[in-house]
Amino acid sequence: MAEKFISDRNLKFLLYEVNDVELLLKYPRFADHSKEVFDMILDTAMRMGKDMFKPLFEEMDRQAPEYVNGEVKVHPKVREIMRAAGDGGWIASVFPYEVGGQQLPYTIGVMLPTAIFGAANYSAAVYHGLTHGAAGLIVSYGTQEMKDTYLPKMLAGEWQGTMALTEPQAGSSLTDLTTTATPTDDGYYLIKGQKLFISAGDHDGCDNVVHLTLGRLKDAPPGIKGISLFIIPKKRIKEDGSLEPNDVNCAGIYHKLGYRGSPITQLAFGENSDCRGWLVGEANKGLAYMFQMMNGARIDVGLAAAAISSAAYYASLEYAGERPQGRKLSSKDPLAPQVPIIEHPDVKRMLLFQKAMVEGSMALLFQCGIYEDLDHVTEGEERENYNLLLELLTPVAKTYPSEMGILSCSTGLQILGGYGFCEEFPLEQLYRDVRIHPIHEGTTGIQGQDLLGRKMRIKNGKAGQLYLAEVRKAIAEAEGIAELKPFAEKLTQAAALLEKVTAKQFETAASQGAEMFLSDATVYLEFFSIIAIAWQWLRQATCATNALSKNPGEADTNFYQGKLAAFRYFFGYELPKIEGLSRRLLNNDGLTVTMKNEYFED
Amino acid sequence: MAEKFISDRNLKFLLYEVNDVELLLKYPRFADHSKEVFDMILDTAMRMGKDMFKPLFEEMDRQAPEYVNGEVKVHPKVREIMRAAGDGGWIASVFPYEVGGQQLPYTIGVMLPTAIFGAANYSAAVYHGLTHGAAGLIVSYGTQEMKDTYLPKMLAGEWQGTMALTEPQAGSSLTDLTTTATPTDDGYYLIKGQKLFISAGDHDGCDNVVHLTLGRLKDAPPGIKGISLFIIPKKRIKEDGSLEPNDVNCAGIYHKLGYRGSPITQLAFGENSDCRGWLVGEANKGLAYMFQMMNGARIDVGLAAAAISSAAYYASLEYAGERPQGRKLSSKDPLAPQVPIIEHPDVKRMLLFQKAMVEGSMALLFQCGIYEDLDHVTEGEERENYNLLLELLTPVAKTYPSEMGILSCSTGLQILGGYGFCEEFPLEQLYRDVRIHPIHEGTTGIQGQDLLGRKMRIKNGKAGQLYLAEVRKAIAEAEGIAELKPFAEKLTQAAALLEKVTAKQFETAASQGAEMFLSDATVYLEFFSIIAIAWQWLRQATCATNALSKNPGEADTNFYQGKLAAFRYFFGYELPKIEGLSRRLLNNDGLTVTMKNEYFED
Repeated sequence: MAEKFISDRNLKFLLYEVNDVELLLKYPRFADHSKEVFDMILDTAMRMGKDMFKPLFEEMDRQAPEYVNGEVKVHPKVREIMRAAGDGGWIASVFPYEVGGQQLPYTIGVMLPTAIFGAANYSAAVYHGLTHGAAGLIVSYGTQEMKDTYLPKMLAGEWQGTMALTEPQAGSSLTDLTTTATPTDDGYYLIKGQKLFISAGDHDGCDNVVHLTLGRLKDAPPGIKGISLFIIPKKRIKEDGSLEPNDVNCAGIYHKLGYRGSPITQLAFGENSDCRGWLVGEANKGLAYMFQMMNGARIDVGLAAAAISSAAYYASLEYAGERPQGRKLSSKDPLAPQVPIIEHPDVKRMLLFQKAMVEGSMALLFQCGIYEDLDHVTEGEERENYNLLLELLTPVAKTYPSEMGILSCSTGLQILGGYGFCEEFPLEQLYRDVRIHPIHEGTTGIQGQDLLGRKMRIKNGKAGQLYLAEVRKAIAEAEGIAELKPFAEKLTQAAALLEKVTAKQFETAASQGAEMFLSDATVYLEFFSIIAIAWQWLRQATCATNALSKNPGEADTNFYQGKLAAFRYFFGYELPKIEGLSRRLLNNDGLTVTMKNEYFED
Repeated sequence: MAEKFISDRNLKFLLYEVNDVELLLKYPRFADHSKEVFDMILDTAMRMGKDMFKPLFEEMDRQAPEYVNGEVKVHPKVREIMRAAGDGGWIASVFPYEVGGQQLPYTIGVMLPTAIFGAANYSAAVYHGLTHGAAGLIVSYGTQEMKDTYLPKMLAGEWQGTMALTEPQAGSSLTDLTTTATPTDDGYYLIKGQKLFISAGDHDGCDNVVHLTLGRLKDAPPGIKGISLFIIPKKRIKEDGSLEPNDVNCAGIYHKLGYRGSPITQLAFGENSDCRGWLVGEANKGLAYMFQMMNGARIDVGLAAAAISSAAYYASLEYAGERPQGRKLSSKDPLAPQVPIIEHPDVKRMLLFQKAMVEGSMALLFQCGIYEDLDHVTEGEERENYNLLLELLTPVAKTYPSEMGILSCSTGLQILGGYGFCEEFPLEQLYRDVRIHPIHEGTTGIQGQDLLGRKMRIKNGKAGQLYLAEVRKAIAEAEGIAELKPFAEKLTQAAALLEKVTAKQFETAASQGAEMFLSDATVYLEFFSIIAIAWQWLRQATCATNALSKNPGEADTNFYQGKLAAFRYFFGYELPKIEGLSRRLLNNDGLTVTMKNEYFED
């Protein structure tokens, strides 16, 4: 089993060289921190990843949760991990001091551990991550009483938090939610409904589960305008602090392709008409609340996909350096010793693909993290701009790492050949684990519609304009460096093509309506994403080239040269893909809108 | 669980409409047969697929083979299936009458059952398929005594056949095989060596296992020129017909991502110096013999990948037609009933992708099958030409369905959303099962080198010229049909680009040597493959358009319209990908040849 699963050197490069996370320190919210604190957090997370998460990577997959007599049994170490996450402050890291948090930047307090723990053992990392997300809703919208009741236990890792959205008849279509909440005179609501695919929705690694649940008040308006947010604990908290059942029952768990160490549950609320829920914030505003957290959750999904792909990359890199097989094409002497397969250009190409996907994705994700942090501390138009950039790039940062994670882990598996297909190496599990990410927290199809149908249209396309300005800023910086000039030119052309393709989509919207407009939104998302990753690679290449000009030591030289190699890979092999995609996007013949269903019959 | 796993209508379309398999009947070898016989075989295979193979699809995955006390226990039905395959004549179908075969065309006798059984349950279909392959070597190169000894039991499905190539130090590098064969005075050789990843190399569903094994005679020349082929039975056959151990031991089986119903074994020959093998054909010619069979095996791999993708396609098609979720974008009334997801253009696009992959791959594979059959019955230059076409297209027909099978099954899984990730639907298993195909019988990297480094070069590029002539023949036919003219023009441009890109690769070979020449061979293979599939889609579209002009009934009209939709999908979404790939292939900067290994260090 490969030792390495993520590069802390690369994380530092993204935090301090490509981006400047230290500039956050000037804002009052983060003023107590320092680079030393950030470094310590990175080091601690790396150590926990290595010592606590990684050793359970296979075991939690093989000993998947079981549903026994209405209870979900998870790996016994889950309790320990949740408590360690609580004790270490990882659940509350970004929350304000007054609720027990540390007011760390999101980039540091959430993204670093999500990436590191996710690369070490994704299944083990979701328990406290979900709790963080659910607690965040209470921090933002809960009453003081709710905060006092739930946060201490959740932030300590004693109680699990969940987001409960999906219902049998309402997967991607939240407008069709039917879980109902009937008011009572005692301040709570009686809840009735079923939820599916709820991650960590029930398990014996915690003492209680707190569901942040979407439902409808009686007589609420139909559709998404009638959705409210409720806190529904699995066990109610009595006056004396003891717990009693709240008529929340786990009806079963799913047996899954991957991500097996974490239970995905079916829940029934109020089967015995005794399930109490408490309204969070205002009635009928639940979807907006949830979506504030959903954006973060989507970034986390992209990050987890990049993290799993990182583990796959290092596992196949290690194998490729150690496995002798074949000879250089230029030396066919069958008696010469075999060379490690990393010497074969085709294997090097595959490793560069993995590296370019992992580090390109990570760069975009940390870019989003910086926007997210700035969105919290800046004001006025500056803040709005960061928010728009974050909103625009969220579907990209969720989807590209997820979709390419499939190919990236598959490529890693391929490097190991037959061994990659076998359980004695981690690739097959990583390949299974990563497959969830284009599905959960909004499928790729949903993200495409979000990008083209919503994000590119808000404020008359302002987000897109801000984004292109960011891209052109990176181009301008790279143009000043002779070696990068031809690449900067390529990105200039790509940005122009993005404008052209986007204009064409809006023309279609105007002349042919919504159905045609969004019919190739997923293709548009892919096209858009490749350019976004190219942007991030140009930024990385600019940093690396500048750093190399200062004659760094051997290790840093190799690191920066590796960056330039992956950058050249991306511009040589990946960026040209926009040609074919744009050809489709400029020539949509409406096939998928007009084709009759019965033509599939044969 | 979806009922349908493959379309017999489509198989007939490929056999009788796109191709004309009946023209084989004019050759003496096939003269006893008729279209009625072919139809009966298709119908019988469909019934067996449905009744015998499909019901065990999940069960054989969940009850995977176990290695217990040196023995491999497989699902109890394996024995039944092997015998049924023997009794039904499926193992011997294409062999000559004199060894007990039926002299069926390969297209009918091997490809139909491989596709149908593979779509129903790939793991269950490999046992007798491997036996067919191994028996084929004995039919072609064995002595009469070998034929008498082994064929009756193998063709009856009582004894398992294998191909034993891979060794620990020699996976893709067969030149490094070290299994040794020491001659004795009794006509046999004493064998010593280890083989890995041997499919069905040992199991309790048969009475004996016959390994067609590559090894080296003592004092053989080094490299591939010193490899010989041996028959090594697990149990030797005594004079009286009884069996005795032959010092062939199964050292273990692999626990795998997918394809779990079939055991992949590690074998040790001659641990106790009592393993006897018999030389097949001439000494030192083993690799050439094996490669005759390997070509067929590679076509079979591509076919199995397309078959698994077919099962995924029909499962997601069924789901998409039944699952209500969301509304048309043009009607956002939240109180309107939800529509089945097939109504969403993005879902239709995914289904069209699957259909285009499955049926495009199948078309190329059956094209190869026709060439293979004609290669057996024609003579002189005609025969050589068919052989060259088959040789050229084999790496494409092996790889494209395998690589796209990953994406095709992944897309099917995506259509089911969260359910696709769960074991209660077949997609997750199909996604696991299909992943083996880019690996076994020569990885994708090996196939790329085979296509560009060997096949495009034999006889001064004659194979490539013959192929382009075939493509241009299809273009000429399509050009005569008004609706197809623009598509024919696109393929004309693609063929010209293929010539340009190919010429560039040979320029590189001449000026920069083998290492640079083949560094992007995998990319070249992908580029070449897309054009080959476009060729096959143009052929199918020509047939479909002609058939529609004759006003067929409703079912046929839907079928042909479906063909045209998938054809338009391929030309609209897939063919443009050659733009980006050609850009790379025309501008290889040598990155993967020159990059230092240490640049991966971080």
